[in-house]
Amino acid sequence: MLIVADENIPLLEAFFGDMGQIRRVSGRTMSAADVRDADVLLVRSVTRVDKALLEGSRVRFVGTATIGTDHVDLAWLEQNGIRFSAAPGCNANSVAEYVLAVLSLYAELQVMDDWTQLSVGIVGAGNVGSELAEKLLRLGFTVKLCDPPRAMQEPDREHAFTSLEDALTCDVVTLHTPLTRNTAHPTYHMVDTPELAGLTPDQLLINAGRGGVISNSALSERLKQPDAPLVALDVWEQEPQISAELLSQVWLATPHIAGYSFEGKVRGTEMVYQAVCQFLGLPVRKKAGQFLPQPALSKAVFTSAADEQTAVWTALRACYDPRSDDARLRKVMRLARSGEEQGVAFDRLRRDYPVRRECSSLKVELKGSSRSLQDSFRAAGFRLHA
Amino acid sequence: MLIVADENIPLLEAFFGDMGQIRRVSGRTMSAADVRDADVLLVRSVTRVDKALLEGSRVRFVGTATIGTDHVDLAWLEQNGIRFSAAPGCNANSVAEYVLAVLSLYAELQVMDDWTQLSVGIVGAGNVGSELAEKLLRLGFTVKLCDPPRAMQEPDREHAFTSLEDALTCDVVTLHTPLTRNTAHPTYHMVDTPELAGLTPDQLLINAGRGGVISNSALSERLKQPDAPLVALDVWEQEPQISAELLSQVWLATPHIAGYSFEGKVRGTEMVYQAVCQFLGLPVRKKAGQFLPQPALSKAVFTSAADEQTAVWTALRACYDPRSDDARLRKVMRLARSGEEQGVAFDRLRRDYPVRRECSSLKVELKGSSRSLQDSFRAAGFRLHA
Ligand SMILES: NC(=O)c1ccc[n+]([C@@H]2O[C@H](COP(=O)([O-])OP(=O)(O)OC[C@H]3O[C@@H](n4cnc5c(N)ncnc54)[C@H](O)[C@@H]3O)[C@@H](O)[C@H]2O)c1
Ligand SMILES: NC(=O)c1ccc[n+]([C@@H]2O[C@H](COP(=O)([O-])OP(=O)(O)OC[C@H]3O[C@@H](n4cnc5c(N)ncnc54)[C@H](O)[C@@H]3O)[C@@H](O)[C@H]2O)c1
Repeated sequence: MLIVADENIPLLEAFFGDMGQIRRVSGRTMSAADVRDADVLLVRSVTRVDKALLEGSRVRFVGTATIGTDHVDLAWLEQNGIRFSAAPGCNANSVAEYVLAVLSLYAELQVMDDWTQLSVGIVGAGNVGSELAEKLLRLGFTVKLCDPPRAMQEPDREHAFTSLEDALTCDVVTLHTPLTRNTAHPTYHMVDTPELAGLTPDQLLINAGRGGVISNSALSERLKQPDAPLVALDVWEQEPQISAELLSQVWLATPHIAGYSFEGKVRGTEMVYQAVCQFLGLPVRKKAGQFLPQPALSKAVFTSAADEQTAVWTALRACYDPRSDDARLRKVMRLARSGEEQGVAFDRLRRDYPVRRECSSLKVELKGSSRSLQDSFRAAGFRLHA
Repeated sequence: MLIVADENIPLLEAFFGDMGQIRRVSGRTMSAADVRDADVLLVRSVTRVDKALLEGSRVRFVGTATIGTDHVDLAWLEQNGIRFSAAPGCNANSVAEYVLAVLSLYAELQVMDDWTQLSVGIVGAGNVGSELAEKLLRLGFTVKLCDPPRAMQEPDREHAFTSLEDALTCDVVTLHTPLTRNTAHPTYHMVDTPELAGLTPDQLLINAGRGGVISNSALSERLKQPDAPLVALDVWEQEPQISAELLSQVWLATPHIAGYSFEGKVRGTEMVYQAVCQFLGLPVRKKAGQFLPQPALSKAVFTSAADEQTAVWTALRACYDPRSDDARLRKVMRLARSGEEQGVAFDRLRRDYPVRRECSSLKVELKGSSRSLQDSFRAAGFRLHA
């Protein structure tokens, strides 16, 4: 069996090495000739998978190690009896950890003794939003979920969801919806001038869903006012050629990398591996955990002298501090001499993203500390040393 | 023997408990009645030690657990045969660690792959400046020392020192001089309009010496220009009623706490203890290290996957990140409703300063990592696990 795969999918050899022959090719330049004699095709979002690529090939299964499927012509695959699988939710934990880190920075800026006093409105309660909500609830935050499509589909859980209007009254509003236009609840410019007008300087607005969910021009106007809210953007309209003005106005700016943890990428491979196993009728023998390399920081020991919040923040930031991504984005945007160069630079930051490990990679030992501290560390996703 | 001591001197009991009786009193309200029957008086900078306090008392020895002696009438003590001792240099390491942390933040902002490429001009090479220089040189930075008084006193080491003009060309200029007016090299407004004019946006200016060494009004003017340097101030003119405008202009702002590590305070007690032992002809049996409580974060384990710079920065900031002090200062200044209230708030931040531990409190274990990483951690002041 021949597996043709994007060379940038991590751990290809580890997961698929014993299933057949692997041919690694560049995802960006992958051609019909590359895939003609493949049985299985594994891609990321940089490869357009359609008739032009696949017609006349042997390919019977296509897997993408990403949550998105915009690059795949699903209808054509279906018509041609080619099985398909994506990796929904593979990077949900990565985004949730990004939001947690942002919350810790925001609470530090506000000099809060107890960050769990923040109320958090989560707009979009899918894979990312649910994962985030679970962490926050375990940590003790007040959480409101806004997801009208789910509220409609789950009528008996309707009380579990709130309106956008209500979510926008939380201390922190964080967006995790896809970009939709022709649906019952379109998200395109869902946060526009009126919604922004209602936010206060004591509120934080985060967007880690899709750029166009917020009208970026309306946001830029709002941020010129003295009573503007604080804003953290990971996603932008017109990526990769984002607005330099808006960049200069937001508090925390990152290049669409909230989901880019190493574990998230490996989970993408693992999910596609599971789908391939199912397709081929093979048992699922491997798990991502087996193949993860050791992290840079493998262990931290806290004592009973540790203040709960400080300890969790220290560990969180030792794993990931979004301010380094913020510094990188602002620097490349400053150095670029045209909108086009800025676009190239934005994409390059994403392509060459450094290895970022999730909280689960850090073993935390708590010496003589409270039950509650243990719970907090667990809720945030750290592994506790017995 | 009776020892009267400011109750806020840490580890009084541990160091002096077996020498005699200790009477702990409030340093701010200490009166002649409190000290009349004391043999030894131990103070901090909040107690004025002069004829009014001491005339007619039994006190034969005064120790201050601080580097400064402005609060002590040294001439009157001398005339009255009262021995005196201070704790010069006790907080030098604390200030050096503050500067190291600031350098790491600055290098991150500039997205430097190798922070040791920064040249650092140290102005004032006394206890603090020398300690800082030693760390930086061991880490591999280029260092220039500017100290005209020392250059004159040490003619054979004259080449070791540079001019202020030259120091001001370094990537980072950090001030560690006292405030002097009528000396051969007065420091009052040593950095004024002309010196500030020469600095570029690629430079960082730090003041952790005394506020008046920089003309704060000239600095405020300079920071209105588009090509202004970045500025980190720990000390300010007119403390505690500092300029709100200047605060809003500087990159990193802290309330004169660079020297406020817990170890620094304990070293102050230890140095006074040593002086008391000498005065009484007792052997020096105790060391500060014996009495230090466990730190919140006691150990960190890095693996060979660790990038050298990231690892050292992670450890540094886990011990101390000046951005939390910056957030606190800006918040209290924002909330205060008058210059007077701001002054009270500034002082309160200093008085109620949280326990901050030095790098030596963190045991670092390096698994299979390079010699050079070990050296860097040692140079920064961490304890390496064998
Ligand atoms: N920033 C990043 O790096 C990053 C990483 C992962 C995902 N994402 C993006 O985040 C979004 C969410 O990802 P996911 O994996 O959770 O997707 P998902 O499909 O699992 O969840 C999306 C949720 O949004 C809800 N939704 C749809 N319209 C809504 C509306 N008008 N108001 C409120 N909720 C609405 C849906 O009902 C669904 O529950 C996607 O757009 C995804 O592309 C970004
Ligand atoms: N920010 C803080 O929390 C903090 C903590 C400790 C010390 N300090 C201050 O930092 C300063 C230095 O402290 P230290 O313990 O190193 O004092 P120190 O007396 O040991 O050293 C001061 C040095 O400055 C030099 N100097 C004097 N005039 C100079 C000039 N015109 N140009 C260059 N150098 C000159 C002296 O020769 C001396 O070497 C003091 O003012 C002290 O109060 C601040």
